[in-house]
Formats: sequence, C-alpha cells, structure tokens
Amino acid sequence: MLLPIPISLYYEDGSHFALLISALITMGAGFASYKFTSFKQDVRAKEGFAIVTFGWIAASFFGSLPFMLSGAIPSFTDAFYETMSGFTTTGATIMTDIEATPEAILLWRSTSHWLGGMGIILLSLAILPFLGVGGMQLFKAEVPGHVADKLTPRVAQTAKVLWGVYLLFTVAEMLLLMYGGMNWFDALNHSFATLSTGGYSTRNASVGAYESSFIHYIITLFMFLAGANFALHYRFLVGDFKAYFQNTEFKIYCAIVLGASVLIGIDVYGRYGDLGQSMRDTLFQVTAITTSTGFGTADFEQWSVGSQCILLALMFIGGSAGSTAGGMKIARIYLLFRFMAAETVRLIHTNAIVPVRMGGTTVPREVLTTLIGYFVLYMMTYGIGVLLFAFLGLDLITALSATVAALSNIGPGLGSVGPTENYAHFPMLGKWLLSLLMLMGRLELFTVVVLFSPAYWRK
Amino acid sequence: MLLPIPISLYYEDGSHFALLISALITMGAGFASYKFTSFKQDVRAKEGFAIVTFGWIAASFFGSLPFMLSGAIPSFTDAFYETMSGFTTTGATIMTDIEATPEAILLWRSTSHWLGGMGIILLSLAILPFLGVGGMQLFKAEVPGHVADKLTPRVAQTAKVLWGVYLLFTVAEMLLLMYGGMNWFDALNHSFATLSTGGYSTRNASVGAYESSFIHYIITLFMFLAGANFALHYRFLVGDFKAYFQNTEFKIYCAIVLGASVLIGIDVYGRYGDLGQSMRDTLFQVTAITTSTGFGTADFEQWSVGSQCILLALMFIGGSAGSTAGGMKIARIYLLFRFMAAETVRLIHTNAIVPVRMGGTTVPREVLTTLIGYFVLYMMTYGIGVLLFAFLGLDLITALSATVAALSNIGPGLGSVGPTENYAHFPMLGKWLLSLLMLMGRLELFTVVVLFSPAYWRK
Repeated sequence: MLLPIPISLYYEDGSHFALLISALITMGAGFASYKFTSFKQDVRAKEGFAIVTFGWIAASFFGSLPFMLSGAIPSFTDAFYETMSGFTTTGATIMTDIEATPEAILLWRSTSHWLGGMGIILLSLAILPFLGVGGMQLFKAEVPGHVADKLTPRVAQTAKVLWGVYLLFTVAEMLLLMYGGMNWFDALNHSFATLSTGGYSTRNASVGAYESSFIHYIITLFMFLAGANFALHYRFLVGDFKAYFQNTEFKIYCAIVLGASVLIGIDVYGRYGDLGQSMRDTLFQVTAITTSTGFGTADFEQWSVGSQCILLALMFIGGSAGSTAGGMKIARIYLLFRFMAAETVRLIHTNAIVPVRMGGTTVPREVLTTLIGYFVLYMMTYGIGVLLFAFLGLDLITALSATVAALSNIGPGLGSVGPTENYAHFPMLGKWLLSLLMLMGRLELFTVVVLFSPAYWRK
Repeated sequence: MLLPIPISLYYEDGSHFALLISALITMGAGFASYKFTSFKQDVRAKEGFAIVTFGWIAASFFGSLPFMLSGAIPSFTDAFYETMSGFTTTGATIMTDIEATPEAILLWRSTSHWLGGMGIILLSLAILPFLGVGGMQLFKAEVPGHVADKLTPRVAQTAKVLWGVYLLFTVAEMLLLMYGGMNWFDALNHSFATLSTGGYSTRNASVGAYESSFIHYIITLFMFLAGANFALHYRFLVGDFKAYFQNTEFKIYCAIVLGASVLIGIDVYGRYGDLGQSMRDTLFQVTAITTSTGFGTADFEQWSVGSQCILLALMFIGGSAGSTAGGMKIARIYLLFRFMAAETVRLIHTNAIVPVRMGGTTVPREVLTTLIGYFVLYMMTYGIGVLLFAFLGLDLITALSATVAALSNIGPGLGSVGPTENYAHFPMLGKWLLSLLMLMGRLELFTVVVLFSPAYWRK
C-alpha cells in the first residue's frame, strides 16, 4: 500500500492519503496480532488450513481499505469483492469506469493480483502438497528445497527460487510492452495482471484498447507462460532445455491451446474474413481463458455457440498445476481420463490391478482418490453455486458461466457477465457468494471446505 | 408387435399390415441368428457387455420397423431415434402430431417403454451387479434369488418376482385411471409409460390434456412408485411393511421430491395464485422429472430460473437404484457426499482410515471407486455431449439441457426442447447422438464405453 503512494503523488490523483491511512491501519492490525498472540514454530497441517484461508480473507479485508478510503469504491461489499477478485487473481471487476479511477488505486488493484499470484505459487508448490489437498503432492516442484515433513525453511528456499522466475518474467514483459509502445504505468499494471493470470486492466476496453498486434502477442505469450508450471520455467532457466517437453502436462497444455485455437479460429475467420486479426484474437482469447487471466480483446459472445462452449469447457479445465492459473488444472483432468481408462480395463479383466501412470511413474492410489475427490467437490460446488445464483434472480446462462468464472478464477463469463460487461449489477448477496467461490477455487476447495467440517473444530 | 394388431383392426387405423410384416421380419431375423450361431450356457462378464448393448440396439432397429412401414415415421433416423427413446424409457419424441397417429402404432410406442422398463429392472438388479458396473452391486435386490457367480437360473427367478410387481402396478394404475374417467386405450398406454418412467403419451398435450386432478395425482403416485427400488416394493408386498423406511435411499428420495416441491411450489403459487393447481402441477412436474418420466402438465419454462435450475439438478440426480428411473441415481449421489465428507475428515486427521457407510454397512473401497468412476464418466460424457450439440448449431440452453435429458433418460429439457416442444427439429446427426447418449445413460455408461476400449477386443 505504501508502494503506490509515490505514483499517487506523481499523477496527483489525490489517493495518497487514503493509501497511507490504509497502510497504517494494516500495520497496526499486524503489529497488534503479532504482539497479542503467540507463535509456535511448529505449524501442523490442521492449522495450515486456517492460516491459509483466514490469511486470504484478512488480506482481502485490509486490501479493500484503499478502495473505500479513496472513494473509488465506496461500498464495503464492492471493495471487498474487488480485492478478493484481485488476490485470488480472478480479475472479475465491478468497476464501471476504470479510466476515471486514480492511478495509484489502479496500481494497488494490479498489485493485489501480483501478490496473490506469488501466494499461489508458494501455495500450490509448497504448502498444499504438505497439507495433502487435491492430489497436488504429485506436481511438487522439482527444484532445490523439496517439501519436507514440516513447514521448514526449505519452503522459503523453494519460494525464493520460484519468485525469482516470477519477478524476472514480470520485468521482461513490462520492458517488452514498453518497447511495443505502452507507457510504463500501463505496462507495469498489465505485467502484474498477466503473470498472476489476474486480468485487471487499466483500460475500460481491457487489452482491446491497444491497437498494436505486438502488444497483443506479447501478452498472449506471457499469459501462456504464466499458465505453465513455474518449476519447469526454473529448470529451463538453469539450463535444462528439455524440461518443457519432458513434461506430460506441458505437452497437453500446448495441445489444448492449439486445438481450441484451430477450432475457434475457423469460426472467427468466417466472421472477420481477416486471417491476421482472426489468429490474433483467437489465440489471445483462448490463452486468456485457458490460463484464467480473462483479459479481453474481442467480444466472444458474438462468436458461434460452439466456440463459446469450447471457451466454457476451457474455464473448467484451467491451466497447469504449479502455475498461477486457476481451474481444475490440466494434470488433474488428464489423470481423470487415465483413471477412467483404468476402470474400463478393470471391468474387462475382472479384478485386474490396473495402475494409473503419469509421465512414467505410477500414481499412488491415495493420491488418485484425493484427486478424484477434488473433481467431485468441484462439480458439486459448481452445481450448488449455479442453483444459488438462479435463486438470486440471474438468468441461466449468467448463473452457469459466472459460477465457473469465479470458481476457476477466470473473470469474464457469458450472458450478463460477458467480456464487454462487468459484475457491478450483481445483487449484494451474489457478490459475497462470488467472493466465497473465488476463495474456494483459489485455495483448491478442500482448504476452505475443511473448516466447515465439525471434525475440524472438535477438541 | 403382434399384440397391437387386434387394436389396429378394432380402430381400423390401417396399420395392421405394417405390424404383421415387422413381426415377421423380426421373427425371421431371430430365427436366423438362432439357427446360424451357437450358444454356450456359460456367458462370461466380458460377453455380457456386448449382449446387453447390441441387444438394445437390435431391439431399437427392429422396433423401428412398424413406424417406418406404417408411414407414421417415414425416416429411418427418426424411427430408430423414436424407438431407442422408447426402449431406453426416455420418451423424447420427434412426433409433432401424436393424435393423428394410428392407435396401434401408439400402443407399440408405449409397449417399447414397457418392455424397456422390464429390461432395466433385470439389468439394474441382476445383470449389472454381475458385470461390476457402476457400483450397482451395492443395491442388489434383497429378494429370493440372489446373484450368484454366473448368470444362473437364479437371475430368472429374481426377474420373475420383480416383473410380477411391475405387472401388478401397471394393472393397478390402468384400473385407477379408467376409474378416473380415462378410456381404456389411453389408460393402458399411460400406464405403460408411467411404470417404465418413459413418458410417451397418446395426447399432444401429454397428461396436461386431462382436466381431472384425480388422473394427475394417480399418475404422480405411480411415477413416484416407479422411481423407487422395486426390491422394496416386493418386500412391502410380501408383508415387510417397514421395508421402505428402513432404506436410506428411499428416505432421501422422499426428501428430495418434497424439498424440491416446496421450493418450486412457492414460486408456482406466486404465479398461479391457486393453491390446489399449484400443488398439483408442482408435485406432478417434480415427480415427472426426478423419476425421469418426463410427462408434462405445465410449461415449466414459464416458471422462475430458480425453479428451472432445481428441475435441471433433479435431471442429473434421477431416481432410485433398482427402479426404472434414469439419472445418476440417488444412492450414488448420497455416497458421493459421504465420500466427500470422509475425504475432508481424512485431511484433518492425516492418514486416518475413514470408512464410507450406507444404511449401517461399510461400502467396500473397490465399490466406491467404481461408483466415483461412474460420476466422472457421466460428467465427462455430459461435457462432450454439450460441446457436440453446440457445434451442431443448437443454442446453449438447448445443448445443456438436451444432453442431460438424453443421458438421464428424462425426455423434455429447456430451450427449444422444452416441455411444450419436441425433438423433430434436431439435425440428423443430433438425433443419432441423442440415441447414443440415451443408450449410454440407460446402460449405466460403462456397459457401452467398455466396447470402445481396445482392451476389450484384444485376443
């Protein structure tokens, strides 16, 4: 919160005071909780769930202060929603005129993405495997500092390495965007929003506001990178050039993006008649949705129902495990297919033991169960979400797409929350429900659901 | 096919010749295949899949002959589709003017429901548990003649008992409908379509054509009975009066129908303003959808989005295991929730072994895996179905609802396949796809999917 203050003074946007007070309140609360609580070095798994969940909620609460105090978003519901959407790297905004908002507030908004993205890297590659959530232990980073039995300094070491990659990519994108003609402020904000697969833009028309194809392609490239496993980037950067294509998930990730682009591209080319623009917009939108970034350069609601359906399917699938992307993750979907195939073979050769493999190694039965449990929980949460939104009076298409857009941390959906619309018109209860879904999706569901279990609070 | 001939002669509807030729062709084909193939008494599980799947396809092929030869449905695609929709007890029609169709052909159409329903009882309580499909072994009939190691005469004994119940209920409903003022022909057809949870009516306006509330309630009651486990009916009829309420699934079944009716009833009462009619229509539609019958008395597309969403959710859930209803089945959904709860507890008490129970007994791990596999396969088939329909040019709501309406063997959906519409306008490819989905859904997915596996055909 202190970081955007110089920007506020530079642009004279009048929000410096709001940011300063917010920072002081947050520091005060932090200091008080440090002072009046005791901290044991030995954090157990059970405590981990509460720390992660309440940490994210607290961040969104304090993070909403600059929006409220500056007057950019007066309502608490809206400000909390916008911040949760930021920290979960969803990017589903309620702002109707972004360009009229003070620059420093916009930077704070993008910063929430960037910090959230950092949190997710740590979460998905170090903390969640330790907690045993959703079979993520499978996709552990193959980098120095493996997860040991406890949350030891090794985690900090893993985090440092991966954050180095994250920072490097952010700077690289920013420089390339400036080279492409974007001003430094927009370039900084868009880089924050790209690497975290967030999607908050500084322009009302999102990335569509820029005419340069170079800018579109640079953002497409970095969205794609942000949706891949950061452990692979690290291995590539330290000289293991075969890292990417030795990885099953990465190969499927490429196939999905290319396959969807070809299918949608045919439709879009039929509409635009311009090969260059069709390719650019198709690749951009497919990457933006698959990686759960949600930036917009084209109104895909004008495309065919088939194309929209593919985008909807991509929303469920999401990006790679160990990336900043949301969704169920490609590795999980792949393993579900392998599981189905194994089940089919088991029916044919009664009682045969059919192992499920990924990239040459057998997936342990327990990990597979956890992984399937995640799928079942995702689909059930989705179903309940749709029902609740329908009861809040939203139309069916909006309910169906807003739920997945929140749960997979995408941003835009279809219907009244399409790429040219925003979430401002949602009823208040709907915004709280979206906030909950974004949080659940971001923390791999079980981390949050565990806290609702009576067994958690017993003794 | 011989059965409707006297009716044809009685009504002088001119279809007797078509029925006779169809019967002769079918008998000829049956005789030829009996003559030129050898039959071993010892049928193995692997052969069971092919027998069931191809049996259903052959029945639909020969069953379509009367429609084509009588000229009621000239197109082969349409006639095959209509018959598959009959034998799978889906009841999704392509007929635009039912009342102009020869009576004997309508009776054949309802008969396909009734025979299909018989097949499903045998399938779900005797054959599928033997094949190990979808965890159905859990819901084995607790009647004389348990499933042994092979398809022995015991299965025939089980079948006889359950078909007795089925026949008894059919006759009972027919008599009650006639008592309520329906003519014997309509009563016969509607009883066939009710007990099989099919939904083909002899009237263009379906059950809505009858003004008598008595008729509506009688059909509601028998739809409800058809959606319950037939083994429970048997136990009740032989004097075990506590059978129903000792059964976990039956209790949840009641709760679902009542719960959904209250939620939808509030909405419908707000529209009609008439308590009696609201109750009647709500109970009828909720039961028609939950049991996958699909009869219509009200246009639920006029109801709120919330109500439509509940109906959509009920389509996925379906009726009880061991009934003639389609869908994923209540017992499976219940066990999925228990599984999720167990997974949550396992995360809290790391590595604790948490058993999943149903009605006092622990569900074996293997059965649970098969059951979850079914859910995953259902959702994936659903997703692929929606994508394909969208590519065939249907709108999103139609694609989303037609896929579940076919896969769960319901009949009506939303959008252009709502309760006041039919499937005549579907593109040809779409009708074949619907036929496949109906077949897959009816045969619990794995029975059909197994045949697509290369492992099945090896050696």
